Amino acid sequence: MIRIGIVGYGNLGRGVAKAVDICPDMELRAVFTRRDPRSIKIADSNVAVLSVDSVANMVDDIDVMIFCGGSASDLPVQGPFFASLFNTVDSYDTHAMIPGYMASIDAVAKNTTAIISTGWDPGLFSIMRVLFEAVLPDGDNYTFWGEGLSQGHSDAIRRIKGVLHAAQYTVPVESAVNSVRSGARPVLGTRQKHLRKCFVVADDDADKDEIENAIKTMPHYFADYNTSVHFIDADEFAKTHTNMPHGGMVLRSGNTVGVNTGDGNTVGVNTGDDRTFGHNQHMEFSLKLESNPEFTGSVLVAYARAAYRMSKEGLYGAKTVLDVPLSYLAIKDRLDVIRELL
Amino acid sequence: MIRIGIVGYGNLGRGVAKAVDICPDMELRAVFTRRDPRSIKIADSNVAVLSVDSVANMVDDIDVMIFCGGSASDLPVQGPFFASLFNTVDSYDTHAMIPGYMASIDAVAKNTTAIISTGWDPGLFSIMRVLFEAVLPDGDNYTFWGEGLSQGHSDAIRRIKGVLHAAQYTVPVESAVNSVRSGARPVLGTRQKHLRKCFVVADDDADKDEIENAIKTMPHYFADYNTSVHFIDADEFAKTHTNMPHGGMVLRSGNTVGVNTGDGNTVGVNTGDDRTFGHNQHMEFSLKLESNPEFTGSVLVAYARAAYRMSKEGLYGAKTVLDVPLSYLAIKDRLDVIRELL
Repeated sequence: MIRIGIVGYGNLGRGVAKAVDICPDMELRAVFTRRDPRSIKIADSNVAVLSVDSVANMVDDIDVMIFCGGSASDLPVQGPFFASLFNTVDSYDTHAMIPGYMASIDAVAKNTTAIISTGWDPGLFSIMRVLFEAVLPDGDNYTFWGEGLSQGHSDAIRRIKGVLHAAQYTVPVESAVNSVRSGARPVLGTRQKHLRKCFVVADDDADKDEIENAIKTMPHYFADYNTSVHFIDADEFAKTHTNMPHGGMVLRSGNTVGVNTGDGNTVGVNTGDDRTFGHNQHMEFSLKLESNPEFTGSVLVAYARAAYRMSKEGLYGAKTVLDVPLSYLAIKDRLDVIRELL
Repeated sequence: MIRIGIVGYGNLGRGVAKAVDICPDMELRAVFTRRDPRSIKIADSNVAVLSVDSVANMVDDIDVMIFCGGSASDLPVQGPFFASLFNTVDSYDTHAMIPGYMASIDAVAKNTTAIISTGWDPGLFSIMRVLFEAVLPDGDNYTFWGEGLSQGHSDAIRRIKGVLHAAQYTVPVESAVNSVRSGARPVLGTRQKHLRKCFVVADDDADKDEIENAIKTMPHYFADYNTSVHFIDADEFAKTHTNMPHGGMVLRSGNTVGVNTGDGNTVGVNTGDDRTFGHNQHMEFSLKLESNPEFTGSVLVAYARAAYRMSKEGLYGAKTVLDVPLSYLAIKDRLDVIRELL
């Protein structure tokens, strides 16, 4: 049995616990929290709830530690400390900072395996972007998110004066998706790819026009998008907007057969509508998730299995989903997987 | 530059040559054929066309040999011989025989890397089946092929007396795909998953009813499917049915959150319509290809890059797509890939 520890017990941490629960080769040994451990109730009495400060005492009891804290402040500090002691898996998702974060982990993971930036984006979507580009070098990748609840954007709306509750859904623009699927390889700006739908419960005496305007003009979060704002009452909000659905897709539209440009270089060329020079080839990966944290937790757990196996083979250091052979994720043995699923 | 050799120059071999052509890190050095080498014309005069019998002379000139022969008779004989001399990539696709084939390659690939059974199924679809099952252990995988031309089924029709030309398209049953997408996790028989559309050019004095009956009752190929037969003339056939489109999809419908069965085991349970016990999570990968051989060739070429890199690291023996980290496929360096695509 692979002994799992969870660091941080919010939505994602609970999703990880549920995912561990259905894996026959794993057991959850402990949850580590910065809160008072007595404030966390876990049905399975075999699971210890401990202060995150006591983690060093558990080195012999945990095979893989799964991080469920935030990328902004928790992981840059906790990540390297934990990776020096344990095999780890995290969902570090500040794309621009990943190389630096990876280097800081790699510097300390001398006898441990630390798989960073798992989940679905970064994570499964990264796998698809790399696989798709490798198979069709003459092509374009497109990533769409949604339809799904964005926690960060919902939080941003909640910070506006007069807002009691808010849920923000990111929605791919259907015509943009269809254009990609047609093989047209369009160049798409921010506004052309996604729109934002906001459901807001406002204080009774709040100025709704003011709230709507504050949302729609908010830099970075909304100003660059077509945004709709819908005011609803608290009952409807509780009934309809407390789940955490999400999803998205990675598409690649590409062409096989290059064109000789006459200068000695043979390159693939996107000629727009004129595709007679070759064949359009379309690859697509999509997710439709009723629960984002439970799915993300499931991905982290599959990579925890890989981290455990890689550490057994001495494959130490900071790894990404791009460094992990798929067979390391499977519950079954490699030969059974090859026999049954290849 | 990675120096590529191609063994067998039919549709797939030409697809590989075109894919190599647009890769900046590769060059095609030689094509090996069982035909008279003078019968094969290749535009690029730097590419040698040689008899397959002369292959041992080229050990120092080829980094990776890509097999484009058939699984039935060519690969079981050629595969082990070539893998003892070269790094190789093949598309061995007789699913039931893969473990034995792999063992025969592994026994001789002592100083070479041999990646077997690449392409899209087995190949990319295998990656998805393994990834999907690992992430959602409580779920069901579904593989659909098509809409696309099946060479084997077209050949079977052509063997019927009175048939001049034939094209057979495998088509996923739309209601089955929709049922999977709904999260119902249906149990689907052969007839429920695919139907078969046949376009046939018959001899003027052939009995069309007899041909249609011979197709629809043919064991293994058609008897277990709903099959439609359409007689057309030779002009329409030449205009509409000489391309080789294909495609297909791998779907997984699964649930997160297990259910305690009361006997101490916590397992995921499919309760049909009653999904209140958890959340449905849907994963989907699909291909829509205008040219099956050109796309398959592109996949083989990406894995040729991986074989080259793995051999440089001493990772010898028989490998599958499940053993290859995704970063080995990319044209770019691992750190650039992590920076740009993770």
